[in-house]
Amino acid sequence: MTKPQQVFYADGDTIANMEQRYRAAFINSLSGFKSANLIGTSSSDGVNNLAIVNSVFHVGANPPLLGMIIRPHTVRRDTLENLEATGQYTINHINQDILRQAHQTSARYEAEVSEFDAVGLTPEYGKRCNAPYVAQAIIKIGLQKKQVTELEINGTVLVIGQITEVMLPDNIIAGDGYVDIEKAGTVAISSLDSYHNTQRIERLTYAKPDLPVSAIGVE
Amino acid sequence: MTKPQQVFYADGDTIANMEQRYRAAFINSLSGFKSANLIGTSSSDGVNNLAIVNSVFHVGANPPLLGMIIRPHTVRRDTLENLEATGQYTINHINQDILRQAHQTSARYEAEVSEFDAVGLTPEYGKRCNAPYVAQAIIKIGLQKKQVTELEINGTVLVIGQITEVMLPDNIIAGDGYVDIEKAGTVAISSLDSYHNTQRIERLTYAKPDLPVSAIGVE
Repeated sequence: MTKPQQVFYADGDTIANMEQRYRAAFINSLSGFKSANLIGTSSSDGVNNLAIVNSVFHVGANPPLLGMIIRPHTVRRDTLENLEATGQYTINHINQDILRQAHQTSARYEAEVSEFDAVGLTPEYGKRCNAPYVAQAIIKIGLQKKQVTELEINGTVLVIGQITEVMLPDNIIAGDGYVDIEKAGTVAISSLDSYHNTQRIERLTYAKPDLPVSAIGVE
Repeated sequence: MTKPQQVFYADGDTIANMEQRYRAAFINSLSGFKSANLIGTSSSDGVNNLAIVNSVFHVGANPPLLGMIIRPHTVRRDTLENLEATGQYTINHINQDILRQAHQTSARYEAEVSEFDAVGLTPEYGKRCNAPYVAQAIIKIGLQKKQVTELEINGTVLVIGQITEVMLPDNIIAGDGYVDIEKAGTVAISSLDSYHNTQRIERLTYAKPDLPVSAIGVE
């Protein structure tokens, strides 16, 4: 891309004065690309729930921990209530084949409706996690809730869980543990509603002060 | 992608027994695609610091908040020390043209070395934020530190900052506030060291229970 001719500049006051939905789309664009996942839970009454979440992030590898941010006012609370009640949830990567169904889970269905049924995805079960997986997902992760913390700064909720099981195709793991999520068709999200395929540029070697980095193969 | 023939299954014990670097690459793959950003700071002595971070995430739009996870044992602490001392930092989207330089900032340079000089990127200054931006970045965000919290569960540090200014090309903002970060060349990361371009599949309309979602234009 060539250098821009015209710079858009916004300070805190400009942002505060933006129309609400415009600001939501704008600010949500700024963190960069986001993960695209479906969170599977069951209520204590046994109703399965499925919710698209674009805020899953890595917290640590040992113990294996993933975090996510749940925004109380924009996402139904079923996911949060269920994972608090049962302690269990699943994370399922979204691929292009289930993209529109995944997005449709963000509609405000009644609590007694299973989004699996409503959007046409199939629940599936693992060995270590009681929450439902998405059968149509390629990469499936089961978790045990470890920490649920409301962030005082804006009332959003930080959920951290520990991975209890992982299921994925064995032909997408490289010899060094790297999982080729692009080969699995995992998509990325930008802002609130834009979905993207990816094309690998390169993997790069571990950086050292006096050595240029170089590309490493993926196999 | 066709359905896999062979499933790789790992439970918590399997993961705990993985070789350390293998586990790091494996677990870091599981959250999905990650944002790719350079964090700019200055020390109280005036030394500029630049660090690649793949954990920036959206926390809220009003007030405009971004979070990131800093892992004490894998990233130099300069970034954290500087933003604690000065209260200011910048987030600069990584594009393909500065990819190898961005990755090179993860080398363990001495505290008195500026990564800008070491990797050949240029500091630039805004109006509201005293920390240095990357002149070669297309999307630049200035922040004021609001919260620095050590997560008890594994000793990583959660940093939340409020956006004080944003600079980006005015031809990448759609009429509804969506910023076309793909057009800006922003890359995505998978696992620890893999960089990806993106190709938009579609933006989707706000989902409602009884309406199928459909694509919306980006302009």
